[in-house]
Amino acid sequence: MTDDTRIPRSSENDHTVEMAKTRREFLKQKTGTDLKYTGEYSIDPAILPGNIENFIGIVQMPVGIAGPVQINGEHAKGQFYIPLATTEGTLVASYSRGMRVINECGGVKTTVVEGWMQRAPAFIFEDARQARDFGEWVEQNFEQIKAISETTTSVGKLEHIQQWSVAKTRYLRFNYTTGDAAGQNMVGKATLVACEWIKANSPIPCMYLLSGNMDTDKKHSHLNMLHSRGKRVIAEIVLKKEVLARVMKVDTKMLAGATTLANTGALMAGAAYNGPHSANGIASLYIATGQDEANVVESHAGMLSHQLLDNGDFYLAVTLPSLIVATFGGGTGLPTQNECLQLLGCVGKDKANKFAEIVAATVLAGDISLACAVIAGHWVSSHDKMGRNR
Amino acid sequence: MTDDTRIPRSSENDHTVEMAKTRREFLKQKTGTDLKYTGEYSIDPAILPGNIENFIGIVQMPVGIAGPVQINGEHAKGQFYIPLATTEGTLVASYSRGMRVINECGGVKTTVVEGWMQRAPAFIFEDARQARDFGEWVEQNFEQIKAISETTTSVGKLEHIQQWSVAKTRYLRFNYTTGDAAGQNMVGKATLVACEWIKANSPIPCMYLLSGNMDTDKKHSHLNMLHSRGKRVIAEIVLKKEVLARVMKVDTKMLAGATTLANTGALMAGAAYNGPHSANGIASLYIATGQDEANVVESHAGMLSHQLLDNGDFYLAVTLPSLIVATFGGGTGLPTQNECLQLLGCVGKDKANKFAEIVAATVLAGDISLACAVIAGHWVSSHDKMGRNR
Amino acid sequence: MTDDTRIPRSSENDHTVEMAKTRREFLKQKTGTDLKYTGEYSIDPAILPGNIENFIGIVQMPVGIAGPVQINGEHAKGQFYIPLATTEGTLVASYSRGMRVINECGGVKTTVVEGWMQRAPAFIFEDARQARDFGEWVEQNFEQIKAISETTTSVGKLEHIQQWSVAKTRYLRFNYTTGDAAGQNMVGKATLVACEWIKANSPIPCMYLLSGNMDTDKKHSHLNMLHSRGKRVIAEIVLKKEVLARVMKVDTKMLAGATTLANTGALMAGAAYNGPHSANGIASLYIATGQDEANVVESHAGMLSHQLLDNGDFYLAVTLPSLIVATFGGGTGLPTQNECLQLLGCVGKDKANKFAEIVAATVLAGDISLACAVIAGHWVSSHDKMGRNR
Amino acid sequence: MTDDTRIPRSSENDHTVEMAKTRREFLKQKTGTDLKYTGEYSIDPAILPGNIENFIGIVQMPVGIAGPVQINGEHAKGQFYIPLATTEGTLVASYSRGMRVINECGGVKTTVVEGWMQRAPAFIFEDARQARDFGEWVEQNFEQIKAISETTTSVGKLEHIQQWSVAKTRYLRFNYTTGDAAGQNMVGKATLVACEWIKANSPIPCMYLLSGNMDTDKKHSHLNMLHSRGKRVIAEIVLKKEVLARVMKVDTKMLAGATTLANTGALMAGAAYNGPHSANGIASLYIATGQDEANVVESHAGMLSHQLLDNGDFYLAVTLPSLIVATFGGGTGLPTQNECLQLLGCVGKDKANKFAEIVAATVLAGDISLACAVIAGHWVSSHDKMGRNR
Repeated sequence: MTDDTRIPRSSENDHTVEMAKTRREFLKQKTGTDLKYTGEYSIDPAILPGNIENFIGIVQMPVGIAGPVQINGEHAKGQFYIPLATTEGTLVASYSRGMRVINECGGVKTTVVEGWMQRAPAFIFEDARQARDFGEWVEQNFEQIKAISETTTSVGKLEHIQQWSVAKTRYLRFNYTTGDAAGQNMVGKATLVACEWIKANSPIPCMYLLSGNMDTDKKHSHLNMLHSRGKRVIAEIVLKKEVLARVMKVDTKMLAGATTLANTGALMAGAAYNGPHSANGIASLYIATGQDEANVVESHAGMLSHQLLDNGDFYLAVTLPSLIVATFGGGTGLPTQNECLQLLGCVGKDKANKFAEIVAATVLAGDISLACAVIAGHWVSSHDKMGRNR
Repeated sequence: MTDDTRIPRSSENDHTVEMAKTRREFLKQKTGTDLKYTGEYSIDPAILPGNIENFIGIVQMPVGIAGPVQINGEHAKGQFYIPLATTEGTLVASYSRGMRVINECGGVKTTVVEGWMQRAPAFIFEDARQARDFGEWVEQNFEQIKAISETTTSVGKLEHIQQWSVAKTRYLRFNYTTGDAAGQNMVGKATLVACEWIKANSPIPCMYLLSGNMDTDKKHSHLNMLHSRGKRVIAEIVLKKEVLARVMKVDTKMLAGATTLANTGALMAGAAYNGPHSANGIASLYIATGQDEANVVESHAGMLSHQLLDNGDFYLAVTLPSLIVATFGGGTGLPTQNECLQLLGCVGKDKANKFAEIVAATVLAGDISLACAVIAGHWVSSHDKMGRNR
Repeated sequence: MTDDTRIPRSSENDHTVEMAKTRREFLKQKTGTDLKYTGEYSIDPAILPGNIENFIGIVQMPVGIAGPVQINGEHAKGQFYIPLATTEGTLVASYSRGMRVINECGGVKTTVVEGWMQRAPAFIFEDARQARDFGEWVEQNFEQIKAISETTTSVGKLEHIQQWSVAKTRYLRFNYTTGDAAGQNMVGKATLVACEWIKANSPIPCMYLLSGNMDTDKKHSHLNMLHSRGKRVIAEIVLKKEVLARVMKVDTKMLAGATTLANTGALMAGAAYNGPHSANGIASLYIATGQDEANVVESHAGMLSHQLLDNGDFYLAVTLPSLIVATFGGGTGLPTQNECLQLLGCVGKDKANKFAEIVAATVLAGDISLACAVIAGHWVSSHDKMGRNR
Repeated sequence: MTDDTRIPRSSENDHTVEMAKTRREFLKQKTGTDLKYTGEYSIDPAILPGNIENFIGIVQMPVGIAGPVQINGEHAKGQFYIPLATTEGTLVASYSRGMRVINECGGVKTTVVEGWMQRAPAFIFEDARQARDFGEWVEQNFEQIKAISETTTSVGKLEHIQQWSVAKTRYLRFNYTTGDAAGQNMVGKATLVACEWIKANSPIPCMYLLSGNMDTDKKHSHLNMLHSRGKRVIAEIVLKKEVLARVMKVDTKMLAGATTLANTGALMAGAAYNGPHSANGIASLYIATGQDEANVVESHAGMLSHQLLDNGDFYLAVTLPSLIVATFGGGTGLPTQNECLQLLGCVGKDKANKFAEIVAATVLAGDISLACAVIAGHWVSSHDKMGRNR
């Protein structure tokens, strides 16, 4: 590769309007593409060094507003207007429709159950016996490991370490609370110093790899369903039979039948989520508010639970076991993203749980809307006798 | 809920600069938030009706440029500069670093293996026997079903229908090719008319639900690992021992050991991907180019395969079984997104496979970079004897 | 190891009463264990050469009889007494209890949906592109491959070949019907000759491994849930509210609630079966009838589906996607095992489907019984208000 | 159903030779089947009341002897002859072949890492918040819950309780150590009294179901891979290149390549075990020694790990995370089964870990044998250039 393919950089002022322009011109020369719109933006690149490299401009993602939605959470209380960044038509309208139903049923109840962020190193030994004994030593020395790891952060707290033995490897999974940050970097640094201390102090000689892929970072995993990466959040509602019939033209009994069918389909498919479309709302709300855009893969997993009540009303709950959210750090401080967080009252200290509740409420709204849409008109009986029993 | 909480709308000119402003003022009144930056943008909202509702403005996501990366594909050939929209620092730099390694090793070879888009209705019967017999009838009448479904689209082609029986339900999964579009809506419409025809013509009376969740739309599933939703794309490279040592300070034998450990960790975690971080590159490239932002959940699944060759070089391949991409439709036509597609030479007819190859090459670059970063400095032996055998 | 640890063998008459005795004496000398009971048996070892090596005697597994159970299948029709070999107390009684409920509700309806047995070689190439193109060649030459493979068997029929690409490997999965045999060996031989022909005739040079573990033999897999290894069998019943209340002291609404909870637990656990205990009945019936004792691992997977009907009755169905059964070959011809097959009317030609239906009916009986037992007495409300809605 | 279909019973002496005969005659009358061989056995039915109901006789399962195998465990030390009950030809011979390889390589090292048995009730509340708060109360009252549960058993010890929230349900999973018993019944009783105490004392009113299917009893689950049900056991060996070449005609480099391919196939299939056939050895050894015959479904799950060492030797390890074993209770006391346990030196106190090590060693032997068999002759290169690098 010759030098002339290198993207221009400046060692002193790389995040400037000028450097971005220089790079766009370079790209135009190389590819013939005029990045006109990409070069039009209102933020100051000087704020971006912690967010991006080789900055060339801005992608403009339209934001629509859904809601309001009544949330009866422990942290989020009241009516919220939800900013959704998307390029997919009907998405905002669909979520809004679900929110209308929620409001007419008295609002959604949200609960944050627990939450951690992980880094999971792998320690390698001569045999399985050493690996097992090392694990016991780690358990016995937890307090010291905790103290060491927390020297790197004023926020993160090491809560517990999960352990697994496979062959001669001991996989550890350090679980931290991380305040209002998502915390991936915070726990990485903390775990690194802990690992170095462990390597230096372990009575059994060992090597380690800072991540043995049991974190599991930037990917869905069954482990994350069982032991939360991010926050485990639940949004619940009792949907009134009358409201669903009037607003969505859907009977709750039909909805129960359809939801059961969809649950079974998801089980057979081996799906990460058994409801309609958690990922849509999460991705759109994440982009609008400066969350790490890749975390939708961990966060979209979950379970949609339902119950047809005796009076014909319909209990519906979404459990999101690994919702990774931040109200501080990453992209949350960028101008437009921060405005969207402000819109939700999620700027300032101790807002991460509030934001998590809002995301869960949004997911529930979207699932109510899509589940009903799939049924209305299509869940049609051509057979009277069958209709009676279903 | 009183009327004054309703988001303002205009039945005639809803996608205008004025309506967006009206809504922002409404939100300011309701929440106190000044959406100043969100209201500054250069695109014309008049182009947005197919992309968003209740438009209030633009979220500004910074774009960095990685590369170039040499791709030796069947569709993508040559050096490509990769636009990545992200708010996560080091991401662009990390992908760029992997691309430099790729280039020094002669480029990445990319292959599109196959591709479909699905809609999966569920048909309900009186018992399992009817459901089974119905399945045979569907198979026998495939050509007619295909013809009916294709009346709704000039692009989509129904290729085959998968079938599963559970209890008295028959789950069908319609598999279409969809040209340059991702095709979710296209196949939804086509399958709806097919289902209506089936319901009217099936010798066995039935009800159906347009989606029984075996699509599986907007969620990861094991089914999607086995039968591609989107495109199955593979990117391969032989990494030269000398290049890795010089550029990344990593020995290929250590890399092999670490990759094996990470594969086992992913297996035990039940992870959707066994490499380092497919989701980062996919999410960032998707946002930059107007892909459906939620599809990263299906697309990030896959397998990272490696092999230490006799000469010390290192074969590495990423297989992405369900990469959902579009070069037409959705957000691909928005100004900044379309510019980013242009930058990749992916605007125009028959570009979807080319784009898919570029995404896979990008993922491979990111995994090379992160895998090496995890090792360098941390994969440290404190035990000479162990070091010899590992 | 010195010779004196070698287990005695006879090149001429290894399956005799004498050789078994010689080996028991050898073991007594080595370990001090007197295999008195193991040496007492009524069958003639001369029949065993195809079933076992280094024969030392017989393990006596007690057989109890459950039933009768009324089966309204396509192959199994009438009342059946089910032989269950087990050492676990209450198992036979519990299955019997479920059968009584089934009978009072008119019997269980059983349906065999489909069935195959697989061998899944892996073909390795220089790159992914070759692997893909090879796959197309295989598809084009299916008829020849089928003809070659079927030269090794008068029973097995190659029905279709599934294919997957990962990196530069092409995994094929040969799907055969195998008559009344389970067929693992049959399809192994057939696929070996097919592979040899493929290797000799493929235009693209290749290596292969006879099994790349996608068979998936002797292990549960999600793939087997989706594409049957063995037979996909469904057993259904409408349980009458009155019968459950009288015989099991269980209300159907409570049963619905409990089943839903258990389904969710199984989903979260990532379980191979979401009902109570398919493995118990399958293992016991398999051992009694000379099935391959290890196949319970594939066979126990499945889905338990339920529906509370408007009149309070309860639809319950078990779907077993990979029930591996044989009425010919393996242990089915051994004296006691064959008697147990005779008891079920499953000796002779074309009995495999009948036997599969009987197994599924048995599983359903056991699940009815255990599900009710878990509830009765324990599913107790202490809260009147809650009780009303659940 | 008329009375004449009822299986004969005796309220006083149901487990006698006479009652068994009466039942066989009844069955002969009903089905025409003469259960001649089934009626010939040497044990006294009077010992069976805890093992079976409706006893009719004995199924004779042939036992072959494999080995000896050199085990260098912490509990199992020395050479062991392994009794395998099977009706599948070649199984005993294959395991014996693997044991010969093991012996020539110095024996297999075995390690028991940990072990628990579970019962997992589900507690239901009015909403998710109550369920979460209840979980905290359980944690705070662990010592009392432990004390209550242990009143029912002199052996079982409640070690910890896992918890998960889904919607308004709190799933608990009680983890006990159970001595030499498998312990399913022991922990069921202990957990029942604990649940009754919890229901009576919880400050938040609740209902419960004794099992919410997260146990997960008698089924494979991913949860069991992560948190052992039964014992987590590892068997390791370094296979000498020379021994494999001489005895198995297999090159270790080829073995490494084939194992990697098989690992990937298993991953893609979503298999419970990524090695060749853990279930065969486990099932046969379980039946021979009176283990619960259905537990092979939990026990067969695991991971086969390998590493090609610098000197050409081959490290191979099997990790079985949920091996459920007993040397006391269930069928372990039956005459022939107890003899087989005696043969292994596993009768008496504190033998469960020893037996677990023997099972793991057996599984490893079988996998060595089959993995080599798949390769020898079939892993054939037709392409010199490829052969060099693979």
